[in-house]
Amino acid sequence: MGESDGNGAPTRRRRATLSAGRGATLTPMNGRSAAAFQGTDAADISSKDGGQQGKRDRSLETVRSTSKSKKKRRNDISDTLSCHKTQQSLLSSASGYKNYRGVLNWCVVMLVLSNARLFLENLLRHGILVDPIQVISLFLNDPYSWPAACLLIVSNVFVLVALYTERQLSKGSLSELAGFLVHCINMAIMLTFPAAVVLLVPSVTPVGGVFVLGTYTILLLKLYSYKDVNMWCRELSNVKAKKLARSLSCPSAQHLNGGDGQVCYPGNLSLRDMYYFVFAPTLCYELNFPRSPTIRMSFLLRRLFEMLFFTQLLVALTQQWMIPIIQSSMKPLEDMDLSRMTERLLRLAVPNHLLWLMFFYWFFHSSLNFTAELLRFGDRQFYKDWWNSESVTYFWQNWNIPVHKWCLRHFYKPLLRRGFSKMISQSAVFFLSAFFHEYLVSVPLRMFRLWAFMGMMAQLPLAWFVGHFLRGNYGNAAVWMSLIIGQPFAVLMYVHDYYVLHYRQETD
Amino acid sequence: MGESDGNGAPTRRRRATLSAGRGATLTPMNGRSAAAFQGTDAADISSKDGGQQGKRDRSLETVRSTSKSKKKRRNDISDTLSCHKTQQSLLSSASGYKNYRGVLNWCVVMLVLSNARLFLENLLRHGILVDPIQVISLFLNDPYSWPAACLLIVSNVFVLVALYTERQLSKGSLSELAGFLVHCINMAIMLTFPAAVVLLVPSVTPVGGVFVLGTYTILLLKLYSYKDVNMWCRELSNVKAKKLARSLSCPSAQHLNGGDGQVCYPGNLSLRDMYYFVFAPTLCYELNFPRSPTIRMSFLLRRLFEMLFFTQLLVALTQQWMIPIIQSSMKPLEDMDLSRMTERLLRLAVPNHLLWLMFFYWFFHSSLNFTAELLRFGDRQFYKDWWNSESVTYFWQNWNIPVHKWCLRHFYKPLLRRGFSKMISQSAVFFLSAFFHEYLVSVPLRMFRLWAFMGMMAQLPLAWFVGHFLRGNYGNAAVWMSLIIGQPFAVLMYVHDYYVLHYRQETD
Repeated sequence: MGESDGNGAPTRRRRATLSAGRGATLTPMNGRSAAAFQGTDAADISSKDGGQQGKRDRSLETVRSTSKSKKKRRNDISDTLSCHKTQQSLLSSASGYKNYRGVLNWCVVMLVLSNARLFLENLLRHGILVDPIQVISLFLNDPYSWPAACLLIVSNVFVLVALYTERQLSKGSLSELAGFLVHCINMAIMLTFPAAVVLLVPSVTPVGGVFVLGTYTILLLKLYSYKDVNMWCRELSNVKAKKLARSLSCPSAQHLNGGDGQVCYPGNLSLRDMYYFVFAPTLCYELNFPRSPTIRMSFLLRRLFEMLFFTQLLVALTQQWMIPIIQSSMKPLEDMDLSRMTERLLRLAVPNHLLWLMFFYWFFHSSLNFTAELLRFGDRQFYKDWWNSESVTYFWQNWNIPVHKWCLRHFYKPLLRRGFSKMISQSAVFFLSAFFHEYLVSVPLRMFRLWAFMGMMAQLPLAWFVGHFLRGNYGNAAVWMSLIIGQPFAVLMYVHDYYVLHYRQETD
Repeated sequence: MGESDGNGAPTRRRRATLSAGRGATLTPMNGRSAAAFQGTDAADISSKDGGQQGKRDRSLETVRSTSKSKKKRRNDISDTLSCHKTQQSLLSSASGYKNYRGVLNWCVVMLVLSNARLFLENLLRHGILVDPIQVISLFLNDPYSWPAACLLIVSNVFVLVALYTERQLSKGSLSELAGFLVHCINMAIMLTFPAAVVLLVPSVTPVGGVFVLGTYTILLLKLYSYKDVNMWCRELSNVKAKKLARSLSCPSAQHLNGGDGQVCYPGNLSLRDMYYFVFAPTLCYELNFPRSPTIRMSFLLRRLFEMLFFTQLLVALTQQWMIPIIQSSMKPLEDMDLSRMTERLLRLAVPNHLLWLMFFYWFFHSSLNFTAELLRFGDRQFYKDWWNSESVTYFWQNWNIPVHKWCLRHFYKPLLRRGFSKMISQSAVFFLSAFFHEYLVSVPLRMFRLWAFMGMMAQLPLAWFVGHFLRGNYGNAAVWMSLIIGQPFAVLMYVHDYYVLHYRQETD
C-alpha cells in the first residue's frame, strides 16, 4: 500500500523536510509521539540493512535513529497535512491518459463467461445432443453404394489425361492449340461430370456431394496451373536463351535431373512429380517446390492431434449448438416475423462464427501443415494475418493464400497482361470465386438459389464502402462484422429453403 | 492486389532478372507474347510518370519501353515459375509472429452483437418494463413522512458539534483528552442514531436508508479526518518552531489569513471552511485545498449531462434487465437447483457488471468532477487505472481514491506508527471496510446476513492467492473475474433472503 502515496506534492514536502530538520535542532518533540516513532523507526532500520548493522556501535545507531525518526515524523506530518494536489481525472480528456490494456482481458473474460452461460443454458434446455454415429449417416445414405468414393477414384483419370497431354506437347507430337483444346475439354468434364452425378444419383448425400465437388474443384485448379506452367516452360525453351532457361528451371541443362536434384522442363513430366503436386497443399504448380529437410515427428503428431480434436469439437458443437437454433428459427422464417428473425440470426451468428474460426484453424493450420510436413513441402504460408485486415480486399487476399496465389498467378495477372484494367480483373476474380461458391453449395443441395453467389458479389460494394469510408480499427471491425453476420444469414437462407423444399412436403 | 506478391524469393528473382537482361541481348522473344507485353508496358510507363514523359522523344521512349517490356516479361515468368519459398505458418510457434491487434476489435464486435441479441430477446419476452415514476416509490413509502430528508437535515448538528469542539480545543479551553472524548461520542452517535432510525421507523425504504446511511458514513469519515488534522496542527504549533509551523500551514504567521489566501491553523476553524470541506469531493481534510482558477462551464455542463443520462440509463437497465433475471432466479434458489442457480448467476453477472461499470463512471467521474468543478476543487484524482490492476490489492488501492486516501492517512499509517506490522494493518483496513459494507447493506434491508462482510473479508485470501500464483494478464483477468462473479453472487444472496423474508410470508 506504500507506493500509492508517492504522489504528494514533492516541492512542498522537500521544503517541509528541510525546515523540519532545522526545527529539530532547536527544540525536542513532545515525548509521547517522539517515543512512538523511535520505536517503529529503529525497527525499520534494523529490518532495512539487516545483520552487519547490528555489529556496529549501539549508541551511535540509536542517536542516528532518533534524529532520523524526528525528521521522518515531521516528514510524515508535512505529507499528511497536504495530501491533495491539483490534477485531472484519468478519464477526462485533459489528462492525456491512454493505457487501457486491461480492457482486452475484460473482453475475454466477459466473452468466456457469457458463452459459458449460453452453454449451460443450452445443456439445461436440450440435454446432450452429441451423437458421433450420426456423422456417418451424413456421408452414406445406403451402406451398399459409395458414389462419393467412386467419384474420387475416377478423378485419377483426369490427372492422367493431363499428364499424358503434357508429355505429347513436350515431345511436340501435339500442337499447342490441340493440347490447349484437350486440356479445356478435360477440365470441362471435370467440372460437369461430378456435378451431374451428384444431381442424378439419389444416394449422394449433401455432405458427400460437397466433399466430392470440393475435391474436384481443387483438382481442376491444380491441373489448370499445371498446364499453364508447362506452357510457360515451353515458351522459355522456345526462346533459345539457354542461360535464362537454366538459371530459371535448372542450373545444369546437361542431363534432365541435375546433380542437386533440381528438375528442369521436360524432366518434370513424371507420374511421381504429378502426384506429389496433386497431394501437395498448394494450387500453384512449380517444377522445384521448396522442400523441408526432414519430417519433424513432434510437429506432425501435434498437428494430427489438433485435426482429430477439432473434428470432434466441430461435430459436437454443430449438433449441440447450431442445429437447435436453426430448427427453432424455422418458424419465425416461415411467418416472416422480422424481430424474431433478427433475434435468431444474432443467436446463430455466435456459434456459426466460432465454428468457422475452428474450421479455419482445423483446415488451414492443422490439416495443411500436417500434409505439408508429411510431404516435406517447404512453403507453409497457407494464410496471412487476415485478423488484422482493415479492408475487405485485404481479408480476401490473406485468409486463403493457396487460392489467392492461384487467382493472382493464373487469373488476375494474365488478365492484366491481356490489358484489362485492375478494376475489371478484380471483379472478374470475385465473379469466379462467387461462381465456385455457388457451385459447391447449390449442386449438393440440389436447389439453385443464388444466396452464396450474391453473398460473394456483395463483397465488391462492401469492399468499396469500407475502403472509402472506414479506416483502421473501424475498418477492421466492419470486416469482422461482415464475417459474423454475413455467413449465418446465407446459412439461414439455404437451410430455410432446404427445409421448405423437403420437410414441408412431407408434412403436407 | 499488387502488393501481395511482394514476397516471392527476392534472391532467385534478382538472378533471374539479370540473366533475363543478358538473354534479351542475345535473342528476340517470339513475336506474340512480346507484342502483347509492349502494349501493357507502354501503358504502364505513360501512366507511371505522366505528362513530362510525353514531351520527350517518342522513338527513344519506345526503344526503352520494348527493352523494358522484355525484361519485365522474363521477370514475370521467373516470378510465376517459382512462386513458393520455404516459410512457416504465422500461427505455428516457429514463426515469431505476435501481432493480434485485430483480436480486440473482434472481442468488441462479439460483445456488442451478443448483447444486442440479449437485449432483443429480453424485449421480445418481457416487453418494455421501464417506468421512471416507479423510482420515486423507492424513496418514499408514504408521501407525508420524509424520514430520510429529516435525517439529512439533522446531520448538520454533528458537523457543528465537531467545529465547536475544535474551536474550544484551539482556545485551549478544552483539554486534548476531553476534546477527544467529545469527538468520539459525537461520531458514535453519528454511527448509531441514523441506523436506529432506519431500523425503527417503518416508512424508511431500503433505498432511502442506503442513501441516508451512506451520507452519514461519508460525513463520519470527513469529521474524523477533520479532528485528526487539527490535532496534528496543534501538535506542530506546540513544537515552538515558528519557521516550521509557518512553512507548513502558512507562509506569513503575522495575521491569520495570509495575503495570498493561505489559511493557517486556528484560522481554518470557520463555518465557511467547514462546509466547504463537507461538500468537497474528498474525505481528507486539509487547511489549504488546491483550487482550480475558474469554473469551466462546458466541462461542468458535460458532466451534468452525463449525470442525468446515466441516472436514466441505470434505472432503465435495472428495471428492464436486472429485475426480470432476479425474479426468475428466485425459484431455482429456493429449490437449491445448483445447475440452474449457476446459469442464473452467470446470466445476472453481465447486466450487474455493466451497471456497476456505469455506476462507477456516473459517480466517480461525472458526479465527483461536477461537484469539484462547482467548488473549484483542484484535486480530481478520484480513481486511478484500476482496470489494469494485476493484483487484488492494486484494485482496492486504485478504484476508490478518496476512501483509499482516507484509510492510508487516518487508519493504515497511524497503525504502522503504533508499531503494527503491515500485514495486520492491511487486514485491519479490510476489516473496517467490510464492516461499513455490511453496515450500509444490512441496516437498510433490516436483516443481518453477513454476505457483504464475508465478501470483503474474502478479498484477503483472494489477494494472497492472486498475488502469489498469478502474474500480468492472468492476474488482471482474475481481478475482473472476481468483480464480475463476486458481486452478483452477493446480490443474489441478499435478494433471495429479502424475498424469502417479505414475500413468502405474504404468500403463506
